[in-house]
Amino acid sequence: MTRFFGTPANVHVGQLFIDRRELHDARVHRPLRAGISGTAAEGADSIVLSGGYVDDQDHGDYILYTGHGGNDGATRRQIADQSPTARGNAALITSMVNGYPVRVVRGADKKSRYAPPAGYQYAGLFTVSSYVTRPGRDGFLIIQLRLDRLAEQPPLVTRESAESDPAFATTTVSRRIRDSALSREIKAQYGHSCQVCGTAVPAFGDRLYAEGAHVRPLGRPHLGSDSLQNLLCLCPNHHTQLDFGGMVILDDLSVATTKTMKPFADLRWRKGHEIDVENAAYHRSLWTPPEQEPQEQAAA
Amino acid sequence: MTRFFGTPANVHVGQLFIDRRELHDARVHRPLRAGISGTAAEGADSIVLSGGYVDDQDHGDYILYTGHGGNDGATRRQIADQSPTARGNAALITSMVNGYPVRVVRGADKKSRYAPPAGYQYAGLFTVSSYVTRPGRDGFLIIQLRLDRLAEQPPLVTRESAESDPAFATTTVSRRIRDSALSREIKAQYGHSCQVCGTAVPAFGDRLYAEGAHVRPLGRPHLGSDSLQNLLCLCPNHHTQLDFGGMVILDDLSVATTKTMKPFADLRWRKGHEIDVENAAYHRSLWTPPEQEPQEQAAA
Repeated sequence: MTRFFGTPANVHVGQLFIDRRELHDARVHRPLRAGISGTAAEGADSIVLSGGYVDDQDHGDYILYTGHGGNDGATRRQIADQSPTARGNAALITSMVNGYPVRVVRGADKKSRYAPPAGYQYAGLFTVSSYVTRPGRDGFLIIQLRLDRLAEQPPLVTRESAESDPAFATTTVSRRIRDSALSREIKAQYGHSCQVCGTAVPAFGDRLYAEGAHVRPLGRPHLGSDSLQNLLCLCPNHHTQLDFGGMVILDDLSVATTKTMKPFADLRWRKGHEIDVENAAYHRSLWTPPEQEPQEQAAA
Repeated sequence: MTRFFGTPANVHVGQLFIDRRELHDARVHRPLRAGISGTAAEGADSIVLSGGYVDDQDHGDYILYTGHGGNDGATRRQIADQSPTARGNAALITSMVNGYPVRVVRGADKKSRYAPPAGYQYAGLFTVSSYVTRPGRDGFLIIQLRLDRLAEQPPLVTRESAESDPAFATTTVSRRIRDSALSREIKAQYGHSCQVCGTAVPAFGDRLYAEGAHVRPLGRPHLGSDSLQNLLCLCPNHHTQLDFGGMVILDDLSVATTKTMKPFADLRWRKGHEIDVENAAYHRSLWTPPEQEPQEQAAA
């Protein structure tokens, strides 16, 4: 059976379930014990928030979710580092890269204002927006993933989708592009050409397309700034590569693939524009294991 | 003064205005007569729906909006063709390509369930998702633009945005990527490599990134199908170029820039996959003026 993404037919957001067996039978969350359903190859299709991790933060529309591993079941404290390659964590990172919707279930948790009083509640579809490896409250490294609730959308009207896949037909995944005044400014400054490869994507007429890319991501937990010192003008391909950890910026402002850490291009600059190397270092720390950059980790 | 995008401070969605002068003073819609505010170079920042075009359709969350031109003020009927290069229409197309948010104002209109009983109402920010040149009810060509309401978002928390541009800081623009089971299938089939250029964008670890691109767009008014005969595996750059009219697919399945109509690459195919040339012809008709393809237009 292939993994099922999206909300199953006959399940609605807000629906309550008695126990994990009911969640399993309704195809909302298949594993009976694990909090994350999925694999590195296929992606994650669902998670359960159980209140079991001290570093979890539930803000309703977005959740800072602690990956799995290193948790002591009896005390619910972290007793070891987590890793981005552990099965469930790797599954969620695959879902992030592919923009897959993740079903989120909340278990009863007195500390959360969003959790049900008892049992489990289906909270709807979220996307994994970003993740960071950071020390948690108990001092061990945790994988902290940010999940954002997908905005409700009216069903897409298509000719065939209704028959072929009723549940998925209503699912729309967003790759968000923040377009601020600064972003428009930097795109104009570079004539919409990518600072990595020089490409300006042609659009209708004489229009060209580029994206303003924040090096240190905006929003919690990263809190990068919306400033020119944190912005690059990139083509969609290199923006994707930067955001999804396929590329990092080195201290000499060359770019390298994350896998080899070998530079493959120098960033191109227009007069008067430069980024803060601390933002590049922050972005790099998101995607390079602590072992590769001991000096970064010591500063954290 | 540079053009202002987003919702002005002190204006809220649903706010009522007595007349066009009040809309002007509140910076919601600056022109006192024109329905579209903007230029081809800067993009459009606001529009007013006045019930003046017979082809307008207001569905609340999305609007099929008729561009300007060719309308007889007295009878409110179309008496000439509209053009995508007319100032307001070109401005809206620029906003589409750049993902700019457009303020939408509804004027009183007895035929619309969404319009206010009198005066004008600010309906919030929309994006221009697509447009089509088609014959309208009165037989003349109209520019029909689809606008989609931006999902409400909690304000971004950034360090500097609050001071620098309070209104715009809350604006997030989406480029939507529908990721259906079919889209996952086609990306797997092509190993995430683009059918135009062969690029597979590297992401974290061994992950690769590509997008499933619908040739004839889904949703109203296009009603393209979510089927393999309407899907390509593309890199984000060529997906952008296809969706924003920088590239069309010719009948021999080569791709050409819209500007020159000269082929620059042949689509690469994996065994068993092909698209329906009618979908390519439909997409082409969106971006090429009727003069260039008289046979297409005759069939419409």
